Formats: sequence, structure tokens, C-alpha cells
Amino acid sequence: MIKIGLMGFGRAGKAVATVFLRHHEFSLEWVMRKQKLLSHRSAAEFLGIDTPDPGEIISVDECDINDVLEKKPVDYIVDFSNEESIYQYANAAAERRVKIVSAISHYSDKTISFLKEIAQKTVVFWSPNITLGVNYLMFAAKFLKKIAPWVDIVVLEEHFKQKQGVSGTALKIADVLDVNYSQISSIRAGGIVGKHEIIFGFPFQTVRLIHESISREAFGNGAIFVAKNLEHKETGFYRFEDLLLPYFSE
Amino acid sequence: MIKIGLMGFGRAGKAVATVFLRHHEFSLEWVMRKQKLLSHRSAAEFLGIDTPDPGEIISVDECDINDVLEKKPVDYIVDFSNEESIYQYANAAAERRVKIVSAISHYSDKTISFLKEIAQKTVVFWSPNITLGVNYLMFAAKFLKKIAPWVDIVVLEEHFKQKQGVSGTALKIADVLDVNYSQISSIRAGGIVGKHEIIFGFPFQTVRLIHESISREAFGNGAIFVAKNLEHKETGFYRFEDLLLPYFSE
Amino acid sequence: MIKIGLMGFGRAGKAVATVFLRHHEFSLEWVMRKQKLLSHRSAAEFLGIDTPDPGEIISVDECDINDVLEKKPVDYIVDFSNEESIYQYANAAAERRVKIVSAISHYSDKTISFLKEIAQKTVVFWSPNITLGVNYLMFAAKFLKKIAPWVDIVVLEEHFKQKQGVSGTALKIADVLDVNYSQISSIRAGGIVGKHEIIFGFPFQTVRLIHESISREAFGNGAIFVAKNLEHKETGFYRFEDLLLPYFSE
Amino acid sequence: MIKIGLMGFGRAGKAVATVFLRHHEFSLEWVMRKQKLLSHRSAAEFLGIDTPDPGEIISVDECDINDVLEKKPVDYIVDFSNEESIYQYANAAAERRVKIVSAISHYSDKTISFLKEIAQKTVVFWSPNITLGVNYLMFAAKFLKKIAPWVDIVVLEEHFKQKQGVSGTALKIADVLDVNYSQISSIRAGGIVGKHEIIFGFPFQTVRLIHESISREAFGNGAIFVAKNLEHKETGFYRFEDLLLPYFSE
Repeated sequence: MIKIGLMGFGRAGKAVATVFLRHHEFSLEWVMRKQKLLSHRSAAEFLGIDTPDPGEIISVDECDINDVLEKKPVDYIVDFSNEESIYQYANAAAERRVKIVSAISHYSDKTISFLKEIAQKTVVFWSPNITLGVNYLMFAAKFLKKIAPWVDIVVLEEHFKQKQGVSGTALKIADVLDVNYSQISSIRAGGIVGKHEIIFGFPFQTVRLIHESISREAFGNGAIFVAKNLEHKETGFYRFEDLLLPYFSE
Repeated sequence: MIKIGLMGFGRAGKAVATVFLRHHEFSLEWVMRKQKLLSHRSAAEFLGIDTPDPGEIISVDECDINDVLEKKPVDYIVDFSNEESIYQYANAAAERRVKIVSAISHYSDKTISFLKEIAQKTVVFWSPNITLGVNYLMFAAKFLKKIAPWVDIVVLEEHFKQKQGVSGTALKIADVLDVNYSQISSIRAGGIVGKHEIIFGFPFQTVRLIHESISREAFGNGAIFVAKNLEHKETGFYRFEDLLLPYFSE
Repeated sequence: MIKIGLMGFGRAGKAVATVFLRHHEFSLEWVMRKQKLLSHRSAAEFLGIDTPDPGEIISVDECDINDVLEKKPVDYIVDFSNEESIYQYANAAAERRVKIVSAISHYSDKTISFLKEIAQKTVVFWSPNITLGVNYLMFAAKFLKKIAPWVDIVVLEEHFKQKQGVSGTALKIADVLDVNYSQISSIRAGGIVGKHEIIFGFPFQTVRLIHESISREAFGNGAIFVAKNLEHKETGFYRFEDLLLPYFSE
Repeated sequence: MIKIGLMGFGRAGKAVATVFLRHHEFSLEWVMRKQKLLSHRSAAEFLGIDTPDPGEIISVDECDINDVLEKKPVDYIVDFSNEESIYQYANAAAERRVKIVSAISHYSDKTISFLKEIAQKTVVFWSPNITLGVNYLMFAAKFLKKIAPWVDIVVLEEHFKQKQGVSGTALKIADVLDVNYSQISSIRAGGIVGKHEIIFGFPFQTVRLIHESISREAFGNGAIFVAKNLEHKETGFYRFEDLLLPYFSE
């Protein structure tokens, strides 16, 4: 069993906890969150999942991270909380060679430097969108652009009406493909969960790479993919494409 | 046999001629165009179609429209030429009760008034996009908006890289649905022939109405649909939705 | 306030209750279900919605429907339970002119006759798929087929891997359009929530009508649309298209 | 200038000739075909393209391939004719180190052995579908299956009504991904040019890889991509993925 400690228990965190609790190769040891609301309750019981995982919900202000890591040791800390969180657990994790998997959407340059420093002592992974599908899309798209650098590339994203601004994932896709932000079209309508489409316009054919989100549990499956692929990796700083690349050389 | 005289022999005109030449219920009597280039050649022979249709190509400057209508009478004049053209043939047509089907993309208010005047003497039809699919889309969309006036509506159009500006059809769709032009997204990439999508975003479901163009011959099939549906109509000015509406009451 | 009594509290019933509880023009008076599990609890409280609606959950075996309708009168009984249910409440409802909205997927011919009998005394509505989107799709598609009876029609449906057999909605669409079942393609993959696409293949253009489900709450919005459109209707038996048709004549 | 000799002048051959004639880095030296119909005419003139390319149309029965290769030497023979053709030119080409690019849809095992024999003396390339898009799709899909071997894979293809049987490309995609043919859905409607979609169904997300054909000229661009990527390759037998793989290691 791979032992997991989870930081964050918002909407994404809950979905991720659900996936870990249901997976027979993983055990959710504890969940740490800012709010005291559900303190000391069992994550499994709260989410209505029948599993022997201990998974106690702990308030970050009511505990000492070193204590937690001593009493309830884990193999991975999976972070779905917030940018500052990393400073609270990273050193304690690194000392014990606990691997870090962070899915925080944005880190400042300063924090990225800190991550790389920590990465000299343990495995540190960071992906702002940790779903397998979106990362695959970016990887596959980059490769098509390499083959046909002159192709027209357009990014189309669709989300629910209330979503403000261009989606972070669409911006990331544009960055990765070196596509001007003016080539991103954003559709906002009703309750659309989330769709990203990369259109490659060739003169006589069109290629479309599409990712459709169904639910937040996709983050959980992404975290599981990452954890499994980091298992035998050496100390260092990893991004999602570092995990995808080896699948080609085999 | 329904006899057709065609104004215009550009790319759209040629595609439309092809469809009429191949249709066993229609006979293409003549094609009138500005250029003298193909004057007196047979449209059928030029387009490589094996048909007994007379279909001579006539230069508009080398003939008198009254003469043409006397010697080679037609039931319909189908217009794929340009805005000014109507002034050359409309009176002559109206006198002989020849029906007019115009697919000109844009007419000034002055010309629209002229059309309505002519429509007191014969059947006059005008549609800036004469494909069945696009007109059906607008009609069906208007109806959905009537059912659910609060729904989010977005228009998405895709065309080849070189196409300038927002597509006229997309603007027309937005007008018909009273949708702000800011809700139109335009994709330009490679050789995409033409796609229009109307997205209706409901809170818990999404409806998409999509039209994909394959080739300009769609204009010809549209003109045939129009001609057939105007056959027993009385003198007056008709738009595409006047032809679609009766299909509901039957 | 329009007063609602809801039959059934399974997954669809819960989603429908949620929509009624959140809607300011409706009041959920009670929920009746077979299971005794949640008996006497408040539907609003159980679903975590903050509303003054009374909405008590009642076990069907522990109460008398006439009693319920006396003490907690409603304008509509909305039925998301099962085929047999109608026999328990229809007479009591009809006597009090309570309108019936049934979303049961299938009724035997015998039950349909019974519905029509009841419909002589009150408004009775039945739709096996009560979402606005799917019903609109069928209506709009029927109309396109009327315009172009010779067009190629294909139905494509996509659902999650475990879904057995062709979707009932796809079969219904095929029936409505008089399309052979061999022209239905069923895709089963992963967690796809539900997508129905009707493809109209013309020689030179393609029209696609697409419905994508996001969540079961769509049934609730459908029921609300139905209830509102039945408000001033006279006694009789109604189907979804009876409610859509008037939007054209206006 | 890279000099090209083209075998075959059917619909695909003509489209491919068009692309070569318009490309400033290639010169079409001759076209060889079975029919005598257009013998000795210029391909450029026949196709209405203004270019200095010699490109004479030669009937295969009226010439000797050795003669042709002596008098009008080429760097590549590009084959869009038929399965038997290879036996007529391969030895003559191999002797002169002329590279062979074959886009024949099907070769018998015997012919494949012959190709490999010839490949000991010159560069031989074979792809039954020589478009960049379809080959990219297969390559990218294979890689996603490697990453997530347990994912549900479905192949969807759409073509014009008259197309018989499942598309060869869809079968090839299924083979490459080790997907059962029962997981291929074929849509036939109207004039759809050609669409292939590979659906990867994950529990909480869906990935779609789509290829849409616009016109046969895509074969020409494919042949150009292949010719350029074979330029510095050593003697041997190559498939499309041999040309795609290096783009990853760079």
C-alpha cells in the first residue's frame, strides 16, 4: 500500500480524497486542512466511502507537521491546498524522504526556487493541472507542432457561464505551443463543465485534440498516475512531461 | 421542366449551374455574366456535364434582357451575380411574371425597397445565404430561444485562415437571435471550408446546432428548394423563413 | 407559489427535488417514496438546501394519498417513481383537479389507456424523457425531415461504459424520425455522461443537432418548464410536443 | 529542386500532382499512367497550373521505364497507381538510387517482401494512408494507450453515404491500437468527406483525437512531408512512424 497524506479539503481535495479512498493500492493516512470544521472526523466516513483507510481530518493549526509525519508516516504528500502551504510541510517532508506531489495552480518564482531547493533532498513534482488528459493533450500537441511548425493553431475552451477570464489551462496550452493569446477563443454558456480543444488547421485537413472534463475526480486519477510514475524516480524536480516522455523510448 | 435563367457565373454561379444541369426537373436555359470570356459557349459543355439543357453563356453587355426573355423564356431568374444586377433584369422579369430568386449577400435599403416594388408584380425571393442548412439552423434556433428566452447563446464559426472578418452568416445568426456580436467566436485555421455552431447553454444540459459546409453546390440545392417552394406562391416578397413556416402547420 | 408533490426519491427524484426547492416560484409540499428510510425527514434539510419549503418525505405505505392531498394540497403531482405508482394516486388527484406530470420512462398500453381516462378529469402529461433539450431536438429534427424527406439521417449516442443496450432516448429519436434502428450508433466509453447527436447528411452540407447531458437536474428544469406550460391548459392528455407547438404560432 | 516522377493519375494522383506543381522546392518531371488518354500532354497545363515544371504525361505501355529514368532523371518515384505497378519500376529505380514513396492502400505479403528486397538497394517508403494527419493521429493514440492501457478506446468514422464497408483507415487505427473491430462505429450520410475520431473514455474525462479530411490534396502534402524527411535517410524500408519518431528525441 502506498501511503498518502493530503493537503487541502476543498472541492478538488474532496474529489481527490474520494479517488484515493476507493483505490486498493493506496491508503489515505490523513487529510490536513486550514478550516477546523471537520476536525478529527474520518474522511472516509464524511465522504460516505466504506474503506479501512484511517484518513483522519486534521486542522493545520491544531497540529505539528513533524508530529503527524512521525505518528502517521506517508510515502507522498499530495497538495491541493494553496500556494503558501508548501512552506509548512516541505522541509519536514524532505527530511523524511517523503515525496511531494503538488497540484497548486500557481506558484511565484520565489516558491518555484524553493521547490527546486527541496528537490535536492526528495522527489518534488509540480503540475498546475494534474489531469492525465490535459497533460497528454499538451504533450501530443507540442509534438505535432514540431512536425509541422507552419500549421495554424487555435485554442478553443468552453466553460460554465460564471467562469471569469480565459481558463488557466488554455493559457498554459498557448504558452506550451507558443501560440499568441489572441488565438484563444473562450465560450461561456450555461453549465458546461470544461472543454479544451486544440485545432490544427492544415491546408487540406484539420486535426483536433479535445479534452472534456466530466468531474473533479479526474484530479485524483491524475495524482495516482503521478504517484505511480514517481515511485522509482530519484531525488529531483519533476514536471508532468518528464513522466510522459519515457513512454516513447520503451 | 422548370426553366431557369442564371445571373452570375463566378465560383458560386458555376456550382449552382452544375446542380441545375444535373437535376432532371430543371432546365438551365441560359447563363448571363459580366465577363465576355466564355460568351456563346455552352455551360454544360464548359462544366463537363452531359445534358440536353441549352444553357448558353451570354455576356450581359452583348444582349438585351427583353430579347433574351422573349427568345429563351424562363420561369425563374436565379441571381448569384452582384447587387446592381437586379436593376438590369427585374422590370423585364416582372412584366413577364418571371419569378426572381436572389442570393445576393447584401442589398442596400434602396435596393430592398426596389425589390418590394417589383414584388407587387411577380414573386420575389431574397436570401443572403441560400443554403437550406443555414436557414434551417436560424429558424430552429429562433424557436429554441422563444421556448427558453433566458438561455445563454453563443455563436461559433470556423473558416479557412485567409477569410477576413466575422462571417456574414454568423452576424446574421446573431441578429436573428438578438445575440450581442461579442458572443461570436471566429476560428481561422488552415483550409476549413465553413462551420457554424450555435451553442445553447442550459444549467444542466447543452444543445448545439451545427452546420458544416462541404461545397458551394449547397447553394444550388438551396436554390432548387426555393424554386420548388415558390412554385404555387402568389405575387409578393418572400424570405427563407416564409418557405419554412408552412412545414409546421401541415 | 405553485405547489408540488413529488413521487419518487431515487437519483432522478433527488435531483428534481433539488431544482424545485431552489426555485422561487415553486414550493415542494411533500415527497412520497417506497422506502421508509428517510421517512418524516425534510427533503430540503436532507439535500442541504436552505429554503422554507415544507417538503416532508413520506413513505407511500405509511400514508393514505387522499389524506395527504387533503392536509397538504398541491397543484401538481410530479412522478419520477415507477410504472405502478400512477394507480395509487391518479384517481385521488383527478378528483381534486390536481394536474399530473409523469416522467416515467415506460408505460404499458394498459397504463396509457388509464392515463387517458384520468385525462378526462384533469390535466395529464407524460414524457419518458422530460428534459427540454432532448424534446426540442426531436421536435426540430422532425421538422427538418419534413422539409427534406430524402435526407440521410443517422443517430449517434454516447454514454458511460457500463450502460447496457441502446439508449431509450436514441430509440425514441429513431421512432420519431422513422429512422431504422440500424442507423443508430452507440458509443460506450469511460464516464461519458450522455450525448445524443442527430446527423442530417445532405449532399453538400451536414447539419448536426446535439444534446449533451451535464447532470440529472436537467429533469427538474424540464418538469418546471412542463408545469409552467400546463398552467392554463384545459383537462386532457398532453405530450411534450403539445407544449412546444404553440411557440410557433405566436 | 527535388525531382519527382509520379505513378498514377487518377483522382488522388491528380490532386498530388497539383500539390507538387505548386510547390517551389519540387519539380514534377513526369507522370506515368496506364491510360493513353492524356498521353504527351503537360500535367501542369491539364490541371490549369502556371509553372515551368516539365511534367509530361506518359502512358506506361508506350515507354520503357529505364529510358524515362535516363532521359528525365528523378530523385523520387511517388506511387499513387496500383499494387502491380511497383514491379514495373522498382528495379530500375533501385539501380539508380531513386527513392520510392508508395501510397498504395494494400500490398500482398509477397509484394511487401519484394519492397524489402528493393530496400536493400535504395530508400523505400510505404504508407497506405499518406496524410500527415491520420498518421499523426495513430502515433499519438498509440502513445496514449501506452500511458493508460486500461482506457476505453472507440473509433468513430464518418463518410459519404455511398462508401461501402468500414473505412480502411479506421481498420488500420483499430489494428494499431489493438482495438476490437466491434469498437468501430461507421456513420454514412450525405456528402461527408471523411472524418476519423478516436475516443479515449476515462472515468472522469474524455480525450478525442479527430482528423477531418478536406480534400485529396492532403495526400500531396503527405508525400511532400515524406520526401523531405527521407532526404538524408540511408537505404532501407521505412514506414510513416519511422519518420515521426525522431521528432521526439530532438
